[in-house]
Amino acid sequence: MTARYDFASDNVAGAAPEALDALIAANSGHAISYGGDHVSAKAADLVRAFLDADADVRFVGSGTAANAISLATLCRPFEAVAAHEHAHVCTDETGAPGFFGHGLGLIALKGGSGLIDPAGLGQALSYPDVSYRQSPAALSLTQATEFGTLYTVDQIKALTGAAKAKGLGVHLDGARLANAIAAGFDPKTIKDLGIDILIIGGTKAGMTPSEAVVLFDPALSRRFDARLKQAGQLPSKSRFYSAPWIGMLESGAFTHRARHANAMAKKLADACPFKVLHPVQANGVFVEMDESTRLRLVDAGWFVFRFLDGSVRLMCAWTTTPEAVEEITAAMESIK
Amino acid sequence: MTARYDFASDNVAGAAPEALDALIAANSGHAISYGGDHVSAKAADLVRAFLDADADVRFVGSGTAANAISLATLCRPFEAVAAHEHAHVCTDETGAPGFFGHGLGLIALKGGSGLIDPAGLGQALSYPDVSYRQSPAALSLTQATEFGTLYTVDQIKALTGAAKAKGLGVHLDGARLANAIAAGFDPKTIKDLGIDILIIGGTKAGMTPSEAVVLFDPALSRRFDARLKQAGQLPSKSRFYSAPWIGMLESGAFTHRARHANAMAKKLADACPFKVLHPVQANGVFVEMDESTRLRLVDAGWFVFRFLDGSVRLMCAWTTTPEAVEEITAAMESIK
Amino acid sequence: MTARYDFASDNVAGAAPEALDALIAANSGHAISYGGDHVSAKAADLVRAFLDADADVRFVGSGTAANAISLATLCRPFEAVAAHEHAHVCTDETGAPGFFGHGLGLIALKGGSGLIDPAGLGQALSYPDVSYRQSPAALSLTQATEFGTLYTVDQIKALTGAAKAKGLGVHLDGARLANAIAAGFDPKTIKDLGIDILIIGGTKAGMTPSEAVVLFDPALSRRFDARLKQAGQLPSKSRFYSAPWIGMLESGAFTHRARHANAMAKKLADACPFKVLHPVQANGVFVEMDESTRLRLVDAGWFVFRFLDGSVRLMCAWTTTPEAVEEITAAMESIK
Amino acid sequence: MTARYDFASDNVAGAAPEALDALIAANSGHAISYGGDHVSAKAADLVRAFLDADADVRFVGSGTAANAISLATLCRPFEAVAAHEHAHVCTDETGAPGFFGHGLGLIALKGGSGLIDPAGLGQALSYPDVSYRQSPAALSLTQATEFGTLYTVDQIKALTGAAKAKGLGVHLDGARLANAIAAGFDPKTIKDLGIDILIIGGTKAGMTPSEAVVLFDPALSRRFDARLKQAGQLPSKSRFYSAPWIGMLESGAFTHRARHANAMAKKLADACPFKVLHPVQANGVFVEMDESTRLRLVDAGWFVFRFLDGSVRLMCAWTTTPEAVEEITAAMESIK
Repeated sequence: MTARYDFASDNVAGAAPEALDALIAANSGHAISYGGDHVSAKAADLVRAFLDADADVRFVGSGTAANAISLATLCRPFEAVAAHEHAHVCTDETGAPGFFGHGLGLIALKGGSGLIDPAGLGQALSYPDVSYRQSPAALSLTQATEFGTLYTVDQIKALTGAAKAKGLGVHLDGARLANAIAAGFDPKTIKDLGIDILIIGGTKAGMTPSEAVVLFDPALSRRFDARLKQAGQLPSKSRFYSAPWIGMLESGAFTHRARHANAMAKKLADACPFKVLHPVQANGVFVEMDESTRLRLVDAGWFVFRFLDGSVRLMCAWTTTPEAVEEITAAMESIK
Repeated sequence: MTARYDFASDNVAGAAPEALDALIAANSGHAISYGGDHVSAKAADLVRAFLDADADVRFVGSGTAANAISLATLCRPFEAVAAHEHAHVCTDETGAPGFFGHGLGLIALKGGSGLIDPAGLGQALSYPDVSYRQSPAALSLTQATEFGTLYTVDQIKALTGAAKAKGLGVHLDGARLANAIAAGFDPKTIKDLGIDILIIGGTKAGMTPSEAVVLFDPALSRRFDARLKQAGQLPSKSRFYSAPWIGMLESGAFTHRARHANAMAKKLADACPFKVLHPVQANGVFVEMDESTRLRLVDAGWFVFRFLDGSVRLMCAWTTTPEAVEEITAAMESIK
Repeated sequence: MTARYDFASDNVAGAAPEALDALIAANSGHAISYGGDHVSAKAADLVRAFLDADADVRFVGSGTAANAISLATLCRPFEAVAAHEHAHVCTDETGAPGFFGHGLGLIALKGGSGLIDPAGLGQALSYPDVSYRQSPAALSLTQATEFGTLYTVDQIKALTGAAKAKGLGVHLDGARLANAIAAGFDPKTIKDLGIDILIIGGTKAGMTPSEAVVLFDPALSRRFDARLKQAGQLPSKSRFYSAPWIGMLESGAFTHRARHANAMAKKLADACPFKVLHPVQANGVFVEMDESTRLRLVDAGWFVFRFLDGSVRLMCAWTTTPEAVEEITAAMESIK
Repeated sequence: MTARYDFASDNVAGAAPEALDALIAANSGHAISYGGDHVSAKAADLVRAFLDADADVRFVGSGTAANAISLATLCRPFEAVAAHEHAHVCTDETGAPGFFGHGLGLIALKGGSGLIDPAGLGQALSYPDVSYRQSPAALSLTQATEFGTLYTVDQIKALTGAAKAKGLGVHLDGARLANAIAAGFDPKTIKDLGIDILIIGGTKAGMTPSEAVVLFDPALSRRFDARLKQAGQLPSKSRFYSAPWIGMLESGAFTHRARHANAMAKKLADACPFKVLHPVQANGVFVEMDESTRLRLVDAGWFVFRFLDGSVRLMCAWTTTPEAVEEITAAMESIK
């Protein structure tokens, strides 16, 4: 029996045809490198149009690097980033913010289902600015969250408003922004939410590896290419990082592929024989399942991870089929 | 008139069909991420076979990061890397070695046509190990060099032998290793040359962005994936970084595409109306050309760079056509 | 009314006469700098004799730097230090371990009264060594702890044994080692406890600013002076950092001054009208006191801090007089 | 025969009585720590009065750290500092600027006798701001220079003016500012010279280890204590770093002790039997002396260093006696 990774993560999927076709189309001919190419220029225009925003846009190869470089842009080493305790930057990036940020700190905030509790942020912001502690200089949000939930626009405004009132910068990790948008989060509102740097995930949205870094504040762009180059994120053949964006945005696949993944998650949650622990608003389903049961599911051929809050995570991707949902549901029924 | 970038760099070319086809082939189905996939395993096997070496192999997205992470692996922050003054790590990576290496230093060595003069290395290694200076802990070589020249096996052994005798680690930047191999440098000898970490350039060899990091010393591999992850170089959809290697190595295209580029450089050098300043052993031709002449060439549609030693650099890629060589030669004749 | 800082910290005290006299004695004449002087050589000999250990000894100006440099010596940036959640390195050094260690992580361990719970360490050491997390590479202990408590030799051995079994290095922050020794912790046993780098606090022990860095493993000493110099901790007029050690160790004041401080803490704890929350084994007394009461005590002239666990901390120094203990006791009685 | 270090460096001298007496005076009583003490407040006032400037002043333990922290304050990691090729930050600090500045680069400028050639600075500032190079973000000057020479006020203005016109910050390494002032450089003019951060050396001026960091631009002060703390340079018993400044500034000894050192250098230069290679404007004399001759001088009991430009350096300190000058002159005569 071959192990099936369908629900292990949304990065187990390949690239969607719209992305791959655009990459192939961009392959012909010679193009100047390091982001100066016509493909990257067009992709950046499409991102700006998608966001209805006049912002600087770069394409990089790694979400971890995109996040960490953003946080290093917003903070100095003796400062800290406030983020949800289960945010990817806190838990799954091997300390990349501290590496790219030269020791910058992380302040772990609590909150149900991956959503930062405003009271906790308020408390973190209220501590006196003493020399022996790394005071917060940035707030990092995640939309959709690690638990497949969504902030409302008002919730985001409340958090960024509190941060801005204290002079903090704001980063939004949008590794799964496509899923949030597919669920109704309007990309054209982002520019008004008090966010300084937005990362839009291309990889999980169905592209070959690519993440868009969107700088809303032009002051942050100064020498940003040098920052990227030093950090190993200014690609020479840059067209391969930008081309998939053209295919996905022009066709609308960026959103509709995510809408499919979200729908599969909803279908899975509806049929799932285990208790679902978080609202299913994007493409993840988190269920209550003890370890021996999870191992039986793995033995039955379905590889799934235990997640940060102790739940078992079932992720849907643009490739998830209704049949796969039905098959894993049946498998869960049988091992329950 | 459209500007032509044919000779601006070897990264202006797209990906070769062998690379792209393999990438497309690897796209189907689900695969576990972060390097654990079957595609990366197969590609690593092929690299090991190509080198006839039992080594750890990783695939990353950026040559700058690959080099800088390697040097950080070999040195501590209060130590230095000895490299040719015109090596990419010294001149073109925005201080990435110091960024990834937390301030590690660079010791610039002299030598004609990009080849380190052994006497200069000997002198650098002979300085007393004092506390106020960053003493060398690694030697970084480049093959083919930035000037399109090659070290012989004996020349490399002389340099690495001197370095090893002093306890240094050795890094080889093989961004253009394909061109060196196409010119006769036997990849199966590399394991015996005293090199600890080898970077093999996939990007310039005709792939979508990918570089192979080869760790000959297993002691260096300890937690290397964590090092890569923290540095933003452990890709989630890792198959896209490894797949092109399968296509290029299985088909032999890795070497024969480079052989073509080398042949185009030879053809260009033979016909070139300007004085050729360095031996043409790989895919670059460096000519004597004053600035007003270079600007006339650019005005005539051919974008070319002035290089580190004051020469004008004409690079050939796997895509360079004999016709393009003839056209730029004619253009050079006309503006001379 | 002048504010009194007697119990605010043990660094509010000046230098003991034994330290100051030795500093004055070392002042005359010319001495070679950067640690090569005869004063530093003699002080290092005295530290070695005090510890009955053949170890490398350096004198630096800052406990924060001494700790952070030690941890950076034991770990790489993608690794972490396991320490008590209230250890100074975790709470009061503005992220210095991450700064000097280029992003190295901290793993906060629980345990009553500042003493690491072995079960918690065991759990931290049992996590799989995955690439997305900073795995522990060092254990950091504090003796006496931040809460004025002491580990027994067996307790330390249990912790360092568990760490060593997993290949970790061990750092001991001895900012208040003098107080621990005065309370019975035998300095001659330290070399057998599995500690790689020991910091002995001179400053809190009654010296002008100076901390001794003791490297038990000679492999760690390689180029250590270069490490210190780069980190701004290789003093030019090094005799001023080492001289106080001669005065304090030759006279026995290092221990007997600490014994006095410990005795004052005991006296204070015995008379204190507030509930004492941790065993008083060194020079600190931690009491239960609500905020309005603390502010009344401050208003009454006695500046004291609220500490990490919510208690109010009363520290005794080598300068603390029985009269001051009686006066603050009376003040506490009156505002209770 | 005991080796004599009188002329080896100006840090071989102890502390002047004015400094030591002030340190002893500051020792009594309890004082709040980490720079909040009354001694540090008074010393900062005296520095401000000395400079006739409203600036933030901090006292730290190490010139290397003071310089490196300043440069890290003025630059980001992907930027560089332009400094004289023989400046202490370039040659003698083990890469501390890159360590504290997370890989920031150094651009080595030429110029006779340690004085930056304005044309060279102009050229460095004229390079295009490209992503693959660390562009200059700060200029670092040294007064008096490493070669015992002085910039005029106009020379400094020309250099800082050029830097400011390009948006750079300016750092002045005043490790030997006392000697410059004693030679006529007016401290009250410094505030008008376009300098953002000034380091005033206390150590070489005759203090126990202490350097003053003067921040002329209040924007740079934001969270500066946290920066110092993280970097291991916010001393707990801070009064010991500031007290010597009170003694030296109130008494005028800061300048008149340096004037004596300068006079001794002049006397030595006048009598010296070897060719003097740089103008003797401060406390250093640099002579032409081959290596066998230098070794004979060392054998004769006088330890002296060969310096960066190949000369032999003879430094005078506040402790240098006319007799010592005569004795070394005689020794030089005898071994010539």
